[in-house]
Order: sequence, then C-alpha cells, then structure tokens
Amino acid sequence: MADLTEEPLSSEQLVDGALLKAHRDEVELPDGEASVREWIDHPGASAIVPFFEDGTTCLVRQFRYPPRRTFLEVPAGKLDTPDEDPEEVAARELEEETGWRAGSLHPIGAAYPCIGYSNEIIYVFAATALARGEQNLADGEFVEVVSMDLDEAIRRARTGALKDMKTITALLYAEQFRSDR
Amino acid sequence: MADLTEEPLSSEQLVDGALLKAHRDEVELPDGEASVREWIDHPGASAIVPFFEDGTTCLVRQFRYPPRRTFLEVPAGKLDTPDEDPEEVAARELEEETGWRAGSLHPIGAAYPCIGYSNEIIYVFAATALARGEQNLADGEFVEVVSMDLDEAIRRARTGALKDMKTITALLYAEQFRSDR
Repeated sequence: MADLTEEPLSSEQLVDGALLKAHRDEVELPDGEASVREWIDHPGASAIVPFFEDGTTCLVRQFRYPPRRTFLEVPAGKLDTPDEDPEEVAARELEEETGWRAGSLHPIGAAYPCIGYSNEIIYVFAATALARGEQNLADGEFVEVVSMDLDEAIRRARTGALKDMKTITALLYAEQFRSDR
Repeated sequence: MADLTEEPLSSEQLVDGALLKAHRDEVELPDGEASVREWIDHPGASAIVPFFEDGTTCLVRQFRYPPRRTFLEVPAGKLDTPDEDPEEVAARELEEETGWRAGSLHPIGAAYPCIGYSNEIIYVFAATALARGEQNLADGEFVEVVSMDLDEAIRRARTGALKDMKTITALLYAEQFRSDR
C-alpha cells in the first residue's frame, strides 16, 4: 500500500461561525509538491435508530435549509465538543427530538458523511428498552416525529425513497444489528 | 404534514474558495422568528459502482485531508457546475480515476451526504460493459485502484469496515440494482 498521506504545512481559519468552522491549509502531497485543502472542522455527531418492541422505529421529518427541502431522518445531533461521549449525545438527542428515552444504547457503527471537505464522523446507535421521556426541541428546531415499521424504513433506504446518507447508513447498520441479535 | 419550510431573508458569502463556497443566510422560521443558517454551496457529484463480468467491482484508496486518513471509496467526482449532466461526470470520473470506460451507465439512486450544512447531492450509477480506457489523475490526486468481489464490498459496507457514507450508500444501491436485474 503506497503512502498517500498529505502533511499540513500551515493552516488559516477562514470562517469562525456559529456552526461552520472553515479552514484553508497548505499541505505537502505524497510527491513532495505543495497544494491547498479547504475543509470544515466539525465536532462529530450521533445518530440513533430506535427499536420498539412492536417492530417499529421512529424517524423525524425536518426542513434542511442548505438543500431547501424536508427529509425523513434518523434522530441525530452534534457533539458539543469532539471529546464529548457519543453515547451521551445519542441519549440526549433521542429524547430531545422524539420524546423517547433509551433504556439501552448499542453502538452499531460509525462513518464519515463528507470526507472531501469535512472531518465530521457520525456514531450510530441502536436504542432499545424505550420509555416515554420528554421532547424538548432546541430554539429554531422544528421536527415532526414519524413512526414506521423498521422493515419499511430499511426498504425505503434501499430503494432510494430516503435521501439522507446518515439515515441510509444508520438503517443498514440497524438491519445488520437486528440480524446479529 | 406541517409546513416546516424556512424562507431566506438575506444571504452573505463568507468564503469563495477554490473548493469551498460558504454562505451565511438570515432565514424566517416556520413560527415567523428569524434565525441564521451557515451552509456550503456545492455543485453536486457523481459516484460509480463498476460491475465487472467476473463479479468484481473496483474501489479507490485515497487519503482524505479533512479526516486525516485513507478511505476505500467508490470512484466519484464533482460536477463542474450544477447544470452538468451527472452521467457525463460519472463516465469521465470513472475513466480518469480507474482507467476503466463504461459501456453503459445506469442511474441507481441519488442522496445527500451532509444536509445539515451542505446542499451537495450525489448521483449514483452502476457501470457495466467495462473496457480498458486511460487513467488520468488530476494534479494533486493520488489514488490506488483496488479490485474486490462486489459481494465482499457490500459485506464491508454492512459490517462497518467501509467508513465513507457515499460508498456505503452506493453499494447498497448496487446490491438492490443487482437483485432487480
């Protein structure tokens, strides 16, 4: 396997926004040439697939401003810092977005949504032993909770009806988790 | 279904980089309140799953600077403009990255990698009737082509060994395409 590593030479912060932190780095390529990489620094996120006893899961419908459309998504939320425990974030975000509290959270995978220009990683959990908690949406967060058979959600991921890659990936992991149990 | 739409009130470009175009918009939320959305404007991309007659596919190994690691990925590349034909981009990027030319390209899905802060959409194609063409990497692009049984690639997507969400999504679509043929 060839060494494909790019080494940072210098870094400049382009944007220090409320959400977006963007950088422009000069890097040394594997052949010794210099190049420029522009990238988003992201603390990571957790996403959750709820497993209810009756075979259903729940998704959330949200408007997403960058693509200007609504999506059906697995519940998810950002870590406050890269050091935060992804499982704690999963527990918090699940309850805040859906009003369901997880008795158990099982790590079922982790993957990167956007490796070309972001370091974001999304940790995926299966939530079981669910009990009623309290929905508590953040300011400016508008969410509809949608109950669906897990089989139907997986079918929609596979056939292209669900359009968000973290949701597609999380449901694939959920299918594997269910078959391994 | 509630109207969850957010309407733009004003927009400011934060970064006009070689790759990254970042904006900060003021928006009106569904409840009439104002808020701010920071987002990346992206022209979209095409990703390709090659189907060879012997049941193999090929992936590319690349170092990705934002997460600072190498990934095994499906071949993929950006549209030059949002109006470019995704199928033409798929044909071009497949040959440039892997040296294989597609006799046929079949659209098998499209999804969004990063809806929280980017409008990027990735169009996924299955490539069949493959013939030798000419690899032609862009300046600063370092890629290793890796041949693998398609079944093994799908297994790795499912079990978490592949870490790039566009690759996981593309292989799920490829599995569905193969079973529908």
